[in-house]
Amino acid sequence: MKTVACVGAGVIGGGWVAHFLARGMRVVAWDPAPDAEEKLRRLVDAAWPALTELGLADHASKDNLSIAKTLAEATADAEFVQESAPEKLELKQKLLADIDDVTPPHVVIASSTSGYGMTEMQVAAKNPDRLVVGHPFNPPYLIPLVEVVGGKLTRRSAVEQAADFYRGTGKTVIVMEREVPGFIANRLQEAMWREALHMVANGEATVEQIDLSITDGPGLRWPVHGPLLTFHLAGGEGGMAHMLDHFGPSLKSPWTRLDAPELTKHLRDSVVQGCLAEADGRSIEDLVEQRDRAIIAIQRAVRDNHA
Amino acid sequence: MKTVACVGAGVIGGGWVAHFLARGMRVVAWDPAPDAEEKLRRLVDAAWPALTELGLADHASKDNLSIAKTLAEATADAEFVQESAPEKLELKQKLLADIDDVTPPHVVIASSTSGYGMTEMQVAAKNPDRLVVGHPFNPPYLIPLVEVVGGKLTRRSAVEQAADFYRGTGKTVIVMEREVPGFIANRLQEAMWREALHMVANGEATVEQIDLSITDGPGLRWPVHGPLLTFHLAGGEGGMAHMLDHFGPSLKSPWTRLDAPELTKHLRDSVVQGCLAEADGRSIEDLVEQRDRAIIAIQRAVRDNHA
Repeated sequence: MKTVACVGAGVIGGGWVAHFLARGMRVVAWDPAPDAEEKLRRLVDAAWPALTELGLADHASKDNLSIAKTLAEATADAEFVQESAPEKLELKQKLLADIDDVTPPHVVIASSTSGYGMTEMQVAAKNPDRLVVGHPFNPPYLIPLVEVVGGKLTRRSAVEQAADFYRGTGKTVIVMEREVPGFIANRLQEAMWREALHMVANGEATVEQIDLSITDGPGLRWPVHGPLLTFHLAGGEGGMAHMLDHFGPSLKSPWTRLDAPELTKHLRDSVVQGCLAEADGRSIEDLVEQRDRAIIAIQRAVRDNHA
Repeated sequence: MKTVACVGAGVIGGGWVAHFLARGMRVVAWDPAPDAEEKLRRLVDAAWPALTELGLADHASKDNLSIAKTLAEATADAEFVQESAPEKLELKQKLLADIDDVTPPHVVIASSTSGYGMTEMQVAAKNPDRLVVGHPFNPPYLIPLVEVVGGKLTRRSAVEQAADFYRGTGKTVIVMEREVPGFIANRLQEAMWREALHMVANGEATVEQIDLSITDGPGLRWPVHGPLLTFHLAGGEGGMAHMLDHFGPSLKSPWTRLDAPELTKHLRDSVVQGCLAEADGRSIEDLVEQRDRAIIAIQRAVRDNHA
């Protein structure tokens, strides 16, 4: 049975705890807040029915959670460390250095940071080469995505070890070759979030209208096809190539407050080729059929859930 | 049996045809393209199994579709007209004026435009007061959302008639009080689309990584909770108020190329109050439980569909 140390046990750290427990691991958690243990156990209790329904791994049990009194106790037997402390740079720098000090050598230490680069966080650690970003999504026990990326001082093998470790727990891993503030998915959802805030600030739409426009609109497509493959299907039988060649100029429309990039030949070709690679031989017709079946199932799932 | 005229029968117009037929209506379509009828019938055939599975209305049949030879023939018996022509302003202006000329008085004429305001489209029509925007999402036979908004010359009752008509066909209708380019959902998805294009253009992420980051990440939440209610849950038990009060400063982080609005007290309170109104008495705990159940069902639906 693998042992994972979870440092920080709030919404995200606690979500990781639930995930690792459900995958049959032993988890040692540490959090300096006085009421952390009570909140953590409540979070795990709340998540457990969902995790049970999804299917627990062999030997998975809430009893495999223990609470350490010190950071050193938490990491002593750990084969992997997941840090999920509050999103403050100086705090993360110091905490990662502290974790590094007390964790057995060669154990990879990952940070759940939602936006800092490891390069800026690893500055105080003695062994910065084993520090990586492993950014999850709320709730970490249900959303598969983890974005993995190292800093300038991180060794390549630590990135690979973290990616393998997460994959072994059933996660969808994206290994990023470059550090970008906010990584990938947070940049995308932040762009939407900021546009939403602008609309509320200007009285253009209410909070409820904004949310309804997504849950009953494009949000129904996004678990099936991401934003780019979605537009591959919006161009009809001509796909993304048709879409960009015909609607490219509308990129300049004042439809959001975010300026569009110049639609160069290179960008156009990258997006078209990327969509074709992703479609992986599936025709637009195949993709439409797949999307339609999935949307129906998703709508049913959401409706049954409301009922 | 109600009769609807669908002017323009491409991906969107054809999707509307499939939707209205499935809701038991008679549809008369008109499209000047020489191969329009063949493409339209193929689109309806492709959509019909999905619509049958969702449940057809009484008397729903593909045989209730007829193809008109002229625009006047298409609208002669129509009780509602849906225009879905290519997205070119001058074309829309002229076409809407032409439709207005041949359509019986008091029939509401809606445009599927994905971004133009009715104020700029209704300039050439003799009876601009019955022209409204009724903006659907692809595919219109599955995605419930329709954004309804009038122009400066549109009478209020036409907006209400259109909203009632769409609701009667099972649609989720958002009536906008103000014209905003791109309406609501397109502004939100365009902000994401532009940020995605910037990332591809800068070599920060591939098309496949971008799509995977959504389908296996935040995309799984959006059919359940829109972007704002999603963040209501990201703040833990303190909800959106905690989120804005503690993470407000991170709005300034360089996480997207879209600048954030100033987080004034007014904006903060609007968003917090909006989330509470939307939560409608449900605690964060209730919302988390509902979200988790829905995400599991959605993941199952998507996986079964892939298998």
